Amino acid sequence: MRFGIIIDRNMGRIFCRFDGNKAIHYGAPPWLGGKETGKAHEFAEEDLGCPVAPRKILCVGRNYAAHAKEMGNELPKEPMIFLKPPSSLAGPGDKVILPKGATRVEHEGELAIVIGKTLKKATRDEAQAAIFGYTCALDVSARDWQKGDGQWWRAKGSDTFCPVGPFIETELDVPAAHVICRVNGVVKQDGRTTDMIFDIPTFIAHVSQSMTIDAGDLFLSGSPDGVGPIVDGDAVEVEVTGLGTLRVSVSQEA
Amino acid sequence: MRFGIIIDRNMGRIFCRFDGNKAIHYGAPPWLGGKETGKAHEFAEEDLGCPVAPRKILCVGRNYAAHAKEMGNELPKEPMIFLKPPSSLAGPGDKVILPKGATRVEHEGELAIVIGKTLKKATRDEAQAAIFGYTCALDVSARDWQKGDGQWWRAKGSDTFCPVGPFIETELDVPAAHVICRVNGVVKQDGRTTDMIFDIPTFIAHVSQSMTIDAGDLFLSGSPDGVGPIVDGDAVEVEVTGLGTLRVSVSQEA
Repeated sequence: MRFGIIIDRNMGRIFCRFDGNKAIHYGAPPWLGGKETGKAHEFAEEDLGCPVAPRKILCVGRNYAAHAKEMGNELPKEPMIFLKPPSSLAGPGDKVILPKGATRVEHEGELAIVIGKTLKKATRDEAQAAIFGYTCALDVSARDWQKGDGQWWRAKGSDTFCPVGPFIETELDVPAAHVICRVNGVVKQDGRTTDMIFDIPTFIAHVSQSMTIDAGDLFLSGSPDGVGPIVDGDAVEVEVTGLGTLRVSVSQEA
Repeated sequence: MRFGIIIDRNMGRIFCRFDGNKAIHYGAPPWLGGKETGKAHEFAEEDLGCPVAPRKILCVGRNYAAHAKEMGNELPKEPMIFLKPPSSLAGPGDKVILPKGATRVEHEGELAIVIGKTLKKATRDEAQAAIFGYTCALDVSARDWQKGDGQWWRAKGSDTFCPVGPFIETELDVPAAHVICRVNGVVKQDGRTTDMIFDIPTFIAHVSQSMTIDAGDLFLSGSPDGVGPIVDGDAVEVEVTGLGTLRVSVSQEA
């Protein structure tokens, strides 16, 4: 099933299930116990907003060998985790703002995972069973801050540095999925999820050993190789096959 | 004024203003527009819970020269920021759990700041004006993970690694305040807030250049020197003069 957020001029943000071009309204996301309200309407792609509102965004770094190599890093022995703040979220059609003072900002297209129930000290099987669905994400990364700051709060966490969407799909043939990132229509990244160093239930279970994962929390599973700079005016797409395409534009802060 | 959370067996978590031993109920925290409900009751200290529910916890590292020195770090040229996840919060009387695999966990007593309104690209004056109040916090830190992991997600962000409370005070004579941390009654840290390298409005304004700060977000202002290990059975207190004392116990994970 396909879920997401419709931004309606009159009704505000509505969580919906999508059936063709029909948006079936929910009182809240299913992972918070939400049910269909009985209302529905036809929607257009431009009505879609960021489909998630997580308390935590947990990212896996260096999870594809070819990307770790292109960044000059050794392969990690256990999942390399970092946090993005919820304030960094953006949605389909939004602008990624390149901050003043960040001289090189890069795209990292990623498969993202939406958690459906609370996890603590989970096994891989429990982690797998707690997955609600999948979506596309762009892990925007300011390389000078990533190198200079030590901690990646603004390198990875500045406003608009985490576009997510357009849909949450509950069914995905993960091993068959490609993670593709295009800049101005040119394919820059095209990775297979089977090339992840740590697979999805492994890194979710790993994080849950240290911290409680809440329903609605979001994981970003790491970037394939091919990362590169984005500049003012660029159009960036992240497509995960089976999940649709997340489209954003890039704008330099004045 | 003094605010906080009462955990009531029947009514659950209630945000309150405190007047002596009277807890005056609010429908929500004032920074979310909450007002007095007209109800009140007498409370005891053991009824107090963690007084905050932030979307983001923003911490300033190396903000006292003597602490930067004891950790073997140079003085930062701009505020050194890192994030803790909301899942790391704990409250007065709670247990700090020392995780298996963390061989040296240390106390860092800190003054914390609760933000009262949204901030973006704020000046120092705007940052100062957006402060709702102040409380005590313990920045629990697992040193081996802090050194080995690169990013501090579990070194600083494991469950129970961010005790906060007992009260939020809207009035504090910040320059007069001492930040004191005791372990088993022995004073281990005693710092003056005037010894901060970056003062409170400076680091709040700095963070707001990169990310939107939401009403209710929490800042931890950095630890004075004197940090040291905590072990199973320890009683830890963080007192900020004028804000009361946050008391937690320490328990080793089995």
